[in-house]
Amino acid sequence: MSRWEPDARGRLQRAAMELYVEHGFEQTTVAEIAERAGLTERTFFRHFADKREVLFFGQEALLELFVSSVAQAPEGTAPFEMAAAALHAVSGVFEDRRPWSLERHRVISANPALAEREQSKMARLSEAVGTALRDRNISEPTASLTASSCISVFHIAFQTWIAEDNTRGFPQIVTETLDALKAVTAGT
Amino acid sequence: MSRWEPDARGRLQRAAMELYVEHGFEQTTVAEIAERAGLTERTFFRHFADKREVLFFGQEALLELFVSSVAQAPEGTAPFEMAAAALHAVSGVFEDRRPWSLERHRVISANPALAEREQSKMARLSEAVGTALRDRNISEPTASLTASSCISVFHIAFQTWIAEDNTRGFPQIVTETLDALKAVTAGT
Repeated sequence: MSRWEPDARGRLQRAAMELYVEHGFEQTTVAEIAERAGLTERTFFRHFADKREVLFFGQEALLELFVSSVAQAPEGTAPFEMAAAALHAVSGVFEDRRPWSLERHRVISANPALAEREQSKMARLSEAVGTALRDRNISEPTASLTASSCISVFHIAFQTWIAEDNTRGFPQIVTETLDALKAVTAGT
Repeated sequence: MSRWEPDARGRLQRAAMELYVEHGFEQTTVAEIAERAGLTERTFFRHFADKREVLFFGQEALLELFVSSVAQAPEGTAPFEMAAAALHAVSGVFEDRRPWSLERHRVISANPALAEREQSKMARLSEAVGTALRDRNISEPTASLTASSCISVFHIAFQTWIAEDNTRGFPQIVTETLDALKAVTAGT
């Protein structure tokens, strides 16, 4: 039996990110992460399947938030408004996590396998939002187009938000990016 | 020195696809592909790096066509119109390739690693179109939003085109999908 460790997950995440930034993702071992966090490898594996999952933890919760926002939109809401509502629900979650998100982005960008995993995550989010829209009786190709627009806005707004010189909040940037997409497709 | 084989690439592609459909991608070897095509393994490797590349051959040409269409759009063309012109240029290329595209889609969908590669290909196309738009002095986030809309329309129109019951041509479906995206973001 292992004893309870306060905030073990958070300590492991912080330790892992420090090491990924200092030594690179490939060069870091789970043993080093556990040692830096003052915990055991066994505790690490109770929280994460492997060192890659430290970077993708929270993906299921994010997907759930997108899907439940679409599911809960009032009857008669236009598809793009459902997507906008989902984006606004999601944008609030990240507010305090910009330093983490910025370091995570750097680690992922430096590693092609992690970058592919991130692309795959975006494709999975888009699939899930598309399914949620079809469950609301939105037909094709509207459901898929709305879903992929939604995840494109999420991805591009996220990049804008974590840019070095940015000082605006994520919710504001989401609103601006949605407006920019409307302007693009309107041809203005 | 090996002798010249007429249409060796085409014969290898057809042989490979037959085997992928009959036995599955994983179960097929390069030796079997070469044998079915009546060619040697050495000839196979002059045309393709590995059996996966048979499915992704043409990716560079596709990327080049997207990029050159954006580069050649007349001065003053709106970004979304540049994307539409690129899509129309690309859509003509696939016209005779529907049976191949349909079988390719089935093989890729049945194999998670190939599906990830396909997602990664779409992300790369989007990056390339975004770069081509920035080279035309389109600023952010417009360039990235236009590029990802362009590739989403390509991907979704492609799925519509290869659907079992579809009888319409790819260029027509591209036009309809572009119109559908405009309707989505206009909230109608």
